[in-house]
Amino acid sequence: MGAINGKEYINRLNQLKNEIWLDGKKVEGLLSEHPVFKGLIQEKAALYDLQLDPHYIEAMTFISPESGDPIGLSYMQPRSIDDLKRRRKMFEQWAKKTYGMMGRSPDYLNTAIMAFASSASFLEGKENCFPENLVQFYKMAREKDLNFTHTFISPQVNRSQFYFEDSKEPIAAKIVDVTDDGLVIKGARLLATQGGLTDEVFVISIGKFFNEDEVFAFSIPSNTKGLKFICRDTFIGGTSHFDHPLSSRYEEMDSIVVFDNVLVPWDRVFYYKNGEVAEKFINQSAFHNLAIHQVITRQIVKTEFILGIAQVLIETINIGEYQHIHEKVSEIICGLETMKALLEKAENDASIDEYGIMRPDITALSVASLTFPKLYPRFTEIIQIMSASGIITLPTENAFLSEIRHDLDQYLQGATKSAEDRVKVFRLAWDLTMSSFGTRETQYERYFFGDPIRLVSSVYKSYPKEQYVKDVCKFLQIENI
Amino acid sequence: MGAINGKEYINRLNQLKNEIWLDGKKVEGLLSEHPVFKGLIQEKAALYDLQLDPHYIEAMTFISPESGDPIGLSYMQPRSIDDLKRRRKMFEQWAKKTYGMMGRSPDYLNTAIMAFASSASFLEGKENCFPENLVQFYKMAREKDLNFTHTFISPQVNRSQFYFEDSKEPIAAKIVDVTDDGLVIKGARLLATQGGLTDEVFVISIGKFFNEDEVFAFSIPSNTKGLKFICRDTFIGGTSHFDHPLSSRYEEMDSIVVFDNVLVPWDRVFYYKNGEVAEKFINQSAFHNLAIHQVITRQIVKTEFILGIAQVLIETINIGEYQHIHEKVSEIICGLETMKALLEKAENDASIDEYGIMRPDITALSVASLTFPKLYPRFTEIIQIMSASGIITLPTENAFLSEIRHDLDQYLQGATKSAEDRVKVFRLAWDLTMSSFGTRETQYERYFFGDPIRLVSSVYKSYPKEQYVKDVCKFLQIENI
Amino acid sequence: MGAINGKEYINRLNQLKNEIWLDGKKVEGLLSEHPVFKGLIQEKAALYDLQLDPHYIEAMTFISPESGDPIGLSYMQPRSIDDLKRRRKMFEQWAKKTYGMMGRSPDYLNTAIMAFASSASFLEGKENCFPENLVQFYKMAREKDLNFTHTFISPQVNRSQFYFEDSKEPIAAKIVDVTDDGLVIKGARLLATQGGLTDEVFVISIGKFFNEDEVFAFSIPSNTKGLKFICRDTFIGGTSHFDHPLSSRYEEMDSIVVFDNVLVPWDRVFYYKNGEVAEKFINQSAFHNLAIHQVITRQIVKTEFILGIAQVLIETINIGEYQHIHEKVSEIICGLETMKALLEKAENDASIDEYGIMRPDITALSVASLTFPKLYPRFTEIIQIMSASGIITLPTENAFLSEIRHDLDQYLQGATKSAEDRVKVFRLAWDLTMSSFGTRETQYERYFFGDPIRLVSSVYKSYPKEQYVKDVCKFLQIENI
Amino acid sequence: MGAINGKEYINRLNQLKNEIWLDGKKVEGLLSEHPVFKGLIQEKAALYDLQLDPHYIEAMTFISPESGDPIGLSYMQPRSIDDLKRRRKMFEQWAKKTYGMMGRSPDYLNTAIMAFASSASFLEGKENCFPENLVQFYKMAREKDLNFTHTFISPQVNRSQFYFEDSKEPIAAKIVDVTDDGLVIKGARLLATQGGLTDEVFVISIGKFFNEDEVFAFSIPSNTKGLKFICRDTFIGGTSHFDHPLSSRYEEMDSIVVFDNVLVPWDRVFYYKNGEVAEKFINQSAFHNLAIHQVITRQIVKTEFILGIAQVLIETINIGEYQHIHEKVSEIICGLETMKALLEKAENDASIDEYGIMRPDITALSVASLTFPKLYPRFTEIIQIMSASGIITLPTENAFLSEIRHDLDQYLQGATKSAEDRVKVFRLAWDLTMSSFGTRETQYERYFFGDPIRLVSSVYKSYPKEQYVKDVCKFLQIENI
Repeated sequence: MGAINGKEYINRLNQLKNEIWLDGKKVEGLLSEHPVFKGLIQEKAALYDLQLDPHYIEAMTFISPESGDPIGLSYMQPRSIDDLKRRRKMFEQWAKKTYGMMGRSPDYLNTAIMAFASSASFLEGKENCFPENLVQFYKMAREKDLNFTHTFISPQVNRSQFYFEDSKEPIAAKIVDVTDDGLVIKGARLLATQGGLTDEVFVISIGKFFNEDEVFAFSIPSNTKGLKFICRDTFIGGTSHFDHPLSSRYEEMDSIVVFDNVLVPWDRVFYYKNGEVAEKFINQSAFHNLAIHQVITRQIVKTEFILGIAQVLIETINIGEYQHIHEKVSEIICGLETMKALLEKAENDASIDEYGIMRPDITALSVASLTFPKLYPRFTEIIQIMSASGIITLPTENAFLSEIRHDLDQYLQGATKSAEDRVKVFRLAWDLTMSSFGTRETQYERYFFGDPIRLVSSVYKSYPKEQYVKDVCKFLQIENI
Repeated sequence: MGAINGKEYINRLNQLKNEIWLDGKKVEGLLSEHPVFKGLIQEKAALYDLQLDPHYIEAMTFISPESGDPIGLSYMQPRSIDDLKRRRKMFEQWAKKTYGMMGRSPDYLNTAIMAFASSASFLEGKENCFPENLVQFYKMAREKDLNFTHTFISPQVNRSQFYFEDSKEPIAAKIVDVTDDGLVIKGARLLATQGGLTDEVFVISIGKFFNEDEVFAFSIPSNTKGLKFICRDTFIGGTSHFDHPLSSRYEEMDSIVVFDNVLVPWDRVFYYKNGEVAEKFINQSAFHNLAIHQVITRQIVKTEFILGIAQVLIETINIGEYQHIHEKVSEIICGLETMKALLEKAENDASIDEYGIMRPDITALSVASLTFPKLYPRFTEIIQIMSASGIITLPTENAFLSEIRHDLDQYLQGATKSAEDRVKVFRLAWDLTMSSFGTRETQYERYFFGDPIRLVSSVYKSYPKEQYVKDVCKFLQIENI
Repeated sequence: MGAINGKEYINRLNQLKNEIWLDGKKVEGLLSEHPVFKGLIQEKAALYDLQLDPHYIEAMTFISPESGDPIGLSYMQPRSIDDLKRRRKMFEQWAKKTYGMMGRSPDYLNTAIMAFASSASFLEGKENCFPENLVQFYKMAREKDLNFTHTFISPQVNRSQFYFEDSKEPIAAKIVDVTDDGLVIKGARLLATQGGLTDEVFVISIGKFFNEDEVFAFSIPSNTKGLKFICRDTFIGGTSHFDHPLSSRYEEMDSIVVFDNVLVPWDRVFYYKNGEVAEKFINQSAFHNLAIHQVITRQIVKTEFILGIAQVLIETINIGEYQHIHEKVSEIICGLETMKALLEKAENDASIDEYGIMRPDITALSVASLTFPKLYPRFTEIIQIMSASGIITLPTENAFLSEIRHDLDQYLQGATKSAEDRVKVFRLAWDLTMSSFGTRETQYERYFFGDPIRLVSSVYKSYPKEQYVKDVCKFLQIENI
Repeated sequence: MGAINGKEYINRLNQLKNEIWLDGKKVEGLLSEHPVFKGLIQEKAALYDLQLDPHYIEAMTFISPESGDPIGLSYMQPRSIDDLKRRRKMFEQWAKKTYGMMGRSPDYLNTAIMAFASSASFLEGKENCFPENLVQFYKMAREKDLNFTHTFISPQVNRSQFYFEDSKEPIAAKIVDVTDDGLVIKGARLLATQGGLTDEVFVISIGKFFNEDEVFAFSIPSNTKGLKFICRDTFIGGTSHFDHPLSSRYEEMDSIVVFDNVLVPWDRVFYYKNGEVAEKFINQSAFHNLAIHQVITRQIVKTEFILGIAQVLIETINIGEYQHIHEKVSEIICGLETMKALLEKAENDASIDEYGIMRPDITALSVASLTFPKLYPRFTEIIQIMSASGIITLPTENAFLSEIRHDLDQYLQGATKSAEDRVKVFRLAWDLTMSSFGTRETQYERYFFGDPIRLVSSVYKSYPKEQYVKDVCKFLQIENI
């Protein structure tokens, strides 16, 4: 047991035979051979291989306190700033392996499970709460190197602030029965990324709920009876790495998770029907700190990839002399350095919480989470503007394999590149920013941290402004009320 | 003869058997049946049908001064402001029929041919110029209702300002021989929209050329020997109107036009090897005025479509109460009204040129052309932001036809819409802004008028500022030097 | 009687002896000689002179239907599009005379009085309403060429949406008594521009009021007993036109209007204590249409002045070759042309209201009012950026009159200007954008039309979107609910 | 000797009797009593007092290696990261004392002198270079705690890139003679902040020069014969701290420095007529690193002051519940945290240069210098927008001392503040963003680091992009040329 390799990940996944619906058909056969899922599964398997690669194993794992086996480092509870830096370096390795393009590499949710479990004692003695289940579950997940999808939000039927669901049949997933064996859940949850492609589904209600039936936290195997994953349309452009360098590898799929009277056994229930806990647990826990720590690390690696693409583009068509090009690339550089500086600051300003966990500073992380959703769409715009019509002139791999290759070689050559290399460069720029895959990435990064308006209010409210107010009042010699 | 209907357009096109290369294969069989071209050809045919529809014929055509037949109105030379308004109403009808989504409806290039021909006398008596060919050609095109693609730019090998091509084999299309029969052209030109899907290819060199071999203006049938159209990858998502409401209809294709020692017969040559004419003709002619007049009209109709989509989205998920939504939609409204006001002003301030053509005012049109490329990407961003995750949750038509339809009906319902209608709405929003088709549209509108930097300098230089300078000097009582 | 000249205006104003407080002192002596008010009063007098100037009288006045005298044209009720254009040309003359810098030239409030009076019949038969007073008052104002200040808003004590004033002493002006002689008003109103420098104060409650005591509409002479004008700090930099070319002429002053148990005689009361009327009257009337018509006209003239300043700056230090300069000036040009186009559209789309008044189209005007508050601060930024450090190096007129003049002449010369002229140019740029006067202008234009958030919601709600929604539903073949 | 106190600073300054011209008059009498300079001199004196204050002396000084006296810490050469942090804490103390509002507190130029002197060995053996003079001068300045103004740029006669001065009389300061006693300089230099208010004038030519007569580096006492300071118009609003809380204290004045055949003695010359040195010295030295380190520290403190003002404003009129207010303040918070993170990163990534000086990382500092000039104008805009009309309604201190105080108390009260305190708050917001002083601050911060366009190109060119290019080429399996 302990950290798995790619083959183990694939075998385990194939054996689950999760119920996945794609384009109106139930997915049959080996998941790892399915044209829509194969690319991602291979990239993910490569991540698992990396953690057991002798050159990386020390950086990627830690020794289980229980079994003595090497365990994926994202499961490690950080108790010092060095632990945080060690975790961050592990995130970096996986992110670099995927150029920051895999939004839900396993470290993200491993971190989430670990973060919640680390604050399990908050649930102690509270109604309908089972902290010991959470701790046990974390240990099991860690030792088996389970991987997860999760789903935080309910269907977006009606976004008015005055709307309360009163449908007879549940729409948002709800507890419809509480039995000796566990909770029975019916209804749906939205946008599980990699839904159906993981061992487990982690479900947790956070925030304010007006209906306690919608309050629960649990994790169940993806092949639990009654659990269905309905995929959105795929954004994979095809399997050719030439034509679709990114989507052929990193299309992660999002799905609607349908609970058709799913039984959640008691030992998998962490809490239920306790609105106060749902409201408070997440902010009590180190979830935000530790999860954003992973996310920002990945986003930085992705930004480095974008900077590289920008510079390769520039060299390809020889536009490095123009001042407006300098201006645009400087924007990417400034964004990159800003994100790096904030990440470092979050680590350097980290502090121990009441559960003994070292939390990276939430202020620097929140600022980074407000910053990146503005940067990323601008980066894609910069790539598009620098590419001009070149990002439209996109012949396919087949064209290069055909008798018109000579024409392409002649007419599509770049200043410093052959036509084939030049087309590869522009297809990458296109797949990053203009393919269905690329635009989904933009939307994903834009909304990763949720509704920006809520985030902004929370930063405003929580930021310590008192000293600055005091200084101004002193300067003006006025009362500070 | 005169204005054709859809069937005539299709038949003529099928008979040409143009040499088109797509994904490494030569296109065979009837073009109008090809899955990648069928949608567009049908939409275009519908435009031709509309002009002969008894309810529209009067608005869409004028009577040929030669044959007495009805002729497509975009071929009419405007000699009064009423003529301009009549032309604009004709553009509007075609734009509305295609929701402004067909960038190169035939009226655009019909207008171009007419505009150049109207200033043919500028070529009179100049070296290597054949004004009578241009006039004759215009009349023929008008009477036969020919439709066109064109190509203005050379391959983008190296965009440094210090680059001059010195390849042995031509890259940019060049005159490689001048014979008794005509010019022989070899090399390529970039991005002919609808290249291969039209009767004719119109080629014209405008601007400064360092090599007179690259200077020519002519039109030849698309099936001329040696002429090849190499398509980019298709951005059609599929043929289902449910899944791909826009790309299944309006994907126009762009192609590289390869001239493999193509002979251009003398009666089709308008000028050649006269750099001064290449530099001056376009600005002497009413081309910019009349072409932008058509473009702005179409862009306004497209903006109305976008406004409609925004409002349908709002109603679908009931977000009309939020002030930030009001702000975003107001941006669309302001953009729309601004474009309308500028178009009207251009018409009202029109004036007769030395060739007797009524030109809409170039200042108002230029301002509109500087404005829309900034508005359009913002509109797509607004649609994306208002849609949030809804624009990602996109099941396919097949899913609605399968046994999981009940789940979709339940979990994807909107506030005011069934799940199916809601998905249709979001798929439209997605196809407009996030599919490969949609993002190509964004790039297309952003660069329609060419390099924005050059445009800006030209507006700065040509705008009459003297009176305002004089006023300031008078106010300050300083000398006006 | 009828239109007055500058001297009549000044005499009448001096005779009023309004109670004005400035910098803790009551203003004594002739207002027209006071250093803080003199400049503005002279500029205003020049406007009155212009309307009787034989070269302009026809353009600036119309013949009174009652007295046969020439009357200021801003008092004329427009009944045709030609009337609107005539009014606009009159606005233009006054705006040009003051380079658009006088925010409250008399035509603005003349127009307001006329607009309200034109819809007086709306008040007919409603409680506490006196339409005949309003009509009579309008006629009197028109025949005497009265000029006005007004005040729309109450003191900004607390801007929470949950705040209701419950002070014992009134803060916001209120009706504290209703007597046989009239209403007695106590409390204050905010920001009367030119408060104390006009014949009359026009006060009107518009919008929702929770306290009917705050609802009233009336006009009283500025020297009414108990009426006090408390000036803000002056933003006049000094009286030298060299040093302060704008503030020495156009500083209009804003004041708090204090009502110290002021008696408003019945014949001056237009309505009171009728919340419904306060809410509806303004939108029933043509006030917005006709007032914005004047404002946009002035803002266009101001923009022309700014464009002139930008170009003079460019010539002074010879920066016209830079592409980023072209970009910035093009922004001003685009803004100018957009405003002009919207104004023209508003006139061309005008329609007759139920009171027989020709109203310029509110949609185009509203879009212009949303546009200018964004343009203007950007214009000032452009001027600052183009000026760089030159806008800081500002010697005074005295320096040029002193023995160091030779140094200044040598070291501050411009590319095309003497040092003196160059300094004049930069001082103007500075007074427009960076002096206390200039920044007040920016704030004034930014908030001229009130809270932009409210304006945006109103544009969203009132804009006719139905047809566009219908088109989209038809395209998608979905139900339009 | 060693660090001086405020009194010593004032006495020394008064004794110099520098030739300063203000508003056409030569300044006579004690500088420290002059209404225009008094405020700043007092604030500066307070800084000198602080460094000898027993509570601060340890943080503010270090022990002279020569004299054993305490020396101002900004003169200390940093040789470790701890030294850098010690320097930064010293900067912070002075910045906090002046709320970041004194752009040229003495530490800025002390740092510059120290930085240049630290790389003096670069000048070793080069033509017309006197490294020993520079080192000696630094030691003398350090031991005497001299303070400086400096001037980097020549008069902005003509900013065309094709302009070369060919005036007979020098405009830009030039060497007109080289004598046994030293260099003779004639001409002018622009914008010496605090010019005339310091012990010394430090003059250095950096960058490319086409005329070697314009190349020199030296420092001379401010009262050197032939040296004249011509002040711009003052931006002090008055001496009342109530009315002008900032300009009455922090107006630093900028002046043109005129050299009227000024003799620079040889022992004060660091180099001359060596164009190559002028081009290279600054980048060889740690000047940028160490100077920007000081500047960013001050800008952070200023941003904290702005955040405090924003929050006090919000409380004063109770607008803290609005989401658009949260958004705006969050922008300030994000800016503040970003600057802090970059400063920390610059320190943490510092490295020793070839001269043994610990340099904070230039990349992080450059990014901060590109960031702040965009942030600062936006901050001022945010303050203006949040203040709305409140920032215009500004009675004076005299008004509160007069008989109308009761009216002000009643009508200008704030939600949580008396009228007087509320007016103080708004006057501060106004003086920061809208007074002549405040707008000069905006221009100052916008251009502190020079032409942003040049800065952007330098960041683009120097940033290490190779690894990212390599990664992209590897991903695409293309050649990296």
